[in-house]
Amino acid sequence: MRVDLNSDLGESFGAWTMGDDAAMLDVVTSANVACGFHGGDPSTMRTTCELAKRRGVAIGAHPGFYDLQGFGRRPILGQTACEIESLVAYQIGALQAMAISVGHKVTHVKAHGALSNMACIDLNMAQALAGAIKAVDPSLYFVVIPLTQLERAGEAAGLKLAREIYADRAYEDDGTLVSRKKPGAVLHDPAAVAARVLQMIQEEAIVSVNGKRLPLTVDTVCIHGDSVGAVEMAKAVRSALIAAHIQIAPFSKPA
Amino acid sequence: MRVDLNSDLGESFGAWTMGDDAAMLDVVTSANVACGFHGGDPSTMRTTCELAKRRGVAIGAHPGFYDLQGFGRRPILGQTACEIESLVAYQIGALQAMAISVGHKVTHVKAHGALSNMACIDLNMAQALAGAIKAVDPSLYFVVIPLTQLERAGEAAGLKLAREIYADRAYEDDGTLVSRKKPGAVLHDPAAVAARVLQMIQEEAIVSVNGKRLPLTVDTVCIHGDSVGAVEMAKAVRSALIAAHIQIAPFSKPA
Amino acid sequence: MRVDLNSDLGESFGAWTMGDDAAMLDVVTSANVACGFHGGDPSTMRTTCELAKRRGVAIGAHPGFYDLQGFGRRPILGQTACEIESLVAYQIGALQAMAISVGHKVTHVKAHGALSNMACIDLNMAQALAGAIKAVDPSLYFVVIPLTQLERAGEAAGLKLAREIYADRAYEDDGTLVSRKKPGAVLHDPAAVAARVLQMIQEEAIVSVNGKRLPLTVDTVCIHGDSVGAVEMAKAVRSALIAAHIQIAPFSKPA
Amino acid sequence: MRVDLNSDLGESFGAWTMGDDAAMLDVVTSANVACGFHGGDPSTMRTTCELAKRRGVAIGAHPGFYDLQGFGRRPILGQTACEIESLVAYQIGALQAMAISVGHKVTHVKAHGALSNMACIDLNMAQALAGAIKAVDPSLYFVVIPLTQLERAGEAAGLKLAREIYADRAYEDDGTLVSRKKPGAVLHDPAAVAARVLQMIQEEAIVSVNGKRLPLTVDTVCIHGDSVGAVEMAKAVRSALIAAHIQIAPFSKPA
Repeated sequence: MRVDLNSDLGESFGAWTMGDDAAMLDVVTSANVACGFHGGDPSTMRTTCELAKRRGVAIGAHPGFYDLQGFGRRPILGQTACEIESLVAYQIGALQAMAISVGHKVTHVKAHGALSNMACIDLNMAQALAGAIKAVDPSLYFVVIPLTQLERAGEAAGLKLAREIYADRAYEDDGTLVSRKKPGAVLHDPAAVAARVLQMIQEEAIVSVNGKRLPLTVDTVCIHGDSVGAVEMAKAVRSALIAAHIQIAPFSKPA
Repeated sequence: MRVDLNSDLGESFGAWTMGDDAAMLDVVTSANVACGFHGGDPSTMRTTCELAKRRGVAIGAHPGFYDLQGFGRRPILGQTACEIESLVAYQIGALQAMAISVGHKVTHVKAHGALSNMACIDLNMAQALAGAIKAVDPSLYFVVIPLTQLERAGEAAGLKLAREIYADRAYEDDGTLVSRKKPGAVLHDPAAVAARVLQMIQEEAIVSVNGKRLPLTVDTVCIHGDSVGAVEMAKAVRSALIAAHIQIAPFSKPA
Repeated sequence: MRVDLNSDLGESFGAWTMGDDAAMLDVVTSANVACGFHGGDPSTMRTTCELAKRRGVAIGAHPGFYDLQGFGRRPILGQTACEIESLVAYQIGALQAMAISVGHKVTHVKAHGALSNMACIDLNMAQALAGAIKAVDPSLYFVVIPLTQLERAGEAAGLKLAREIYADRAYEDDGTLVSRKKPGAVLHDPAAVAARVLQMIQEEAIVSVNGKRLPLTVDTVCIHGDSVGAVEMAKAVRSALIAAHIQIAPFSKPA
Repeated sequence: MRVDLNSDLGESFGAWTMGDDAAMLDVVTSANVACGFHGGDPSTMRTTCELAKRRGVAIGAHPGFYDLQGFGRRPILGQTACEIESLVAYQIGALQAMAISVGHKVTHVKAHGALSNMACIDLNMAQALAGAIKAVDPSLYFVVIPLTQLERAGEAAGLKLAREIYADRAYEDDGTLVSRKKPGAVLHDPAAVAARVLQMIQEEAIVSVNGKRLPLTVDTVCIHGDSVGAVEMAKAVRSALIAAHIQIAPFSKPA
């Protein structure tokens, strides 16, 4: 068995830093790199690509809304499918250039923040995302949350999909994330998180808060990099997987 | 004899429009497309690429400083060569993705505004520009102003160069543009502009205000698209060249 | 009888211009000045304040979302009431400083674009707007659309209200604007617009598309300044009111 | 004897934090608050004003260039005196509104980063700064670096001046800061910094690296808040002054 560990990185902007990228790059196998619209800037992107290359970490574009102040977390309505497709294509291209500049290569795309949240439930937006990927480079993997419109649109577009689970979030019976407003929505204990991730990979299923199993091949596990204790949790997950003889490698480098 | 006509296009931003792109695209053979840093946005870039493709107009990235309010015309100091290289690479990549999305292809790069002005006299900055082009795609043409550090850096990097003259600007004896503060710096009469452009192409030389000739193969003529009477002047230049049996075609599509 | 004519002005940004402010300032009596978040920049704001002062035109802050690319027309969700209050207060203060710098004075506030549209139906947001005005300067007039949450929140906050009608928009029986997707939503004939505005002022009522009358004292008439024929329509409205012996003066300068 | 301690605060932006404002506000007596152009956003500004008010810390506007990516540290050329005056006035007004919203009051202005550095040696720019302050509120204190064009322009404008020294920077014999490129330019030992600050206050002079004394009444001491160990150094300076029976109070609240 094998799985990929991914994290959102390169989210610093100018003089402001976010997360401990260097430490996270020692743990994950895929980095979702911010592309300048919600975080990141050309120099940060370049540095992130360089660091990832040195460590053999695969990189993907992490496009978000054009909203630095809101860090791409605020839903911005009133954008046409064509506008969404353009803003996603733009960000993929920008990262491709940064990657190629340092001898690395973009191999996946994962939507950020409100763009991802909205596309999970809005097929038009999900199709715009998939359409942008297909138009720019159909060989790119599309990281999707299972059972969402993202997955549906990605499948319809014939893209290679990487299905991800969240290491530290609880799931409802229908596969959606438990709202952050409910108790237990976010798991904080590294050991518990690691055990649950291992369970989902081994059982090939999302395990909901009620114990329901939703069959799924887990291609990648999302580990947050910008919260307190992020690096510790990431290491705990990695160690648990290795101890269970699960190979940790980028989904974009099939065995 | 043949020559290319280029213009800066796609400079609208959101709800604000600039220039008459549709009209200019009927006149020029190469469009320098703003990449979102000083003007342009993803949707405008996409539309510009589509319009250019339909008319057979070649497109190039027109990177500028990250300064929408100043339209990229304000020198921003304190940027390292690496930062300049990154911001140029970013913008080239972004346009490449927009172009490929609509079935077109970026074939040249021309620096905008203060970035260009500074690089004309600052070899480090010119090298950063040339370095970005070479790193992202060494097959791209680099549009340079003859006798500047841009040309020198482009040659040193081994890039394919397209040497341009300005249709409506007067030249000093050393090949630099006459300062806008001096009378006669900008030519306004379409007929006079057309005649002078024709002369420089046929004589293969920049002709200064004092009549001095600086030998040069003119690959492309820059025609401004955002001033009053821009379209009329562009048409006058084009007509004069055609009347003189000079072929007008993109430099990036050699016969 | 008297009424005010207002228009959204100062919406240029950097090198991009929008509307014919100079012409509109000869027609209207109140200018809603963009404050740099969706349009406008410090220099444009200053110039607009100067031009308004010279013509005796009252000025108001026209705060919008922080979204230059979307010109403040895109709903941005996920902002708390406190954040909305802060962004409105910020923009009012910025314009106050520009006004005082040139010897003029801000006397009203009118929300722009999506901020206004959302606050019309969202009491929390309307209260945040009213709260910002009250906190910064409770003597400011609050321009509201009658029968909306804006009016309700303004009344509850004890602010001086200026109730406005739109010169060129059709109204439903409940006082809301007819959706732009329906035929007849926007009126284009200057004479018809002028006649209808006159009717609503004289009958002291909004007159709906079905002829229903919603009683109302019209304090100000909004005339768009950025569309084709805007100036002509503005002049037609002004002429019709003058011909009917209705005094045209800023609501903020009571007789 | 009495002196003020000032620090640049409120420099977080959206999701990105900078410095430990809460800790610094327990040490300083004046806060220079970023106004959204190089750092800060409306919500951060409001929070900073609230925290300062609670602790009795005076607040001032800290205007910078419109350059979030460069944090206002990059010289942006090509701005007219009128543009500089407008951008400064805008930022002062924005902070005034935030302050009044929470019951506090702006009492000083101190230029940030490249705007300050350029104005120190460019009289036109310094006059634009002083002009903006005078136009918006002539009762505001202008924090200046002694022996610069800032001081000269402030005096000429008849503004109340607060002369500041830097706690952790070495001075040349002419009163300018030792270049950061030279060894010893920045002092790192809290005890040494505290002793030197105390000396300059007591001797009423800047003491240069060569021991030269430049007579000066020190109104305020600038303590950096965003570097490692900033809070410790600030506390060391404060303790040393208190131990020497020097009263620490805002310059804007004369005894």
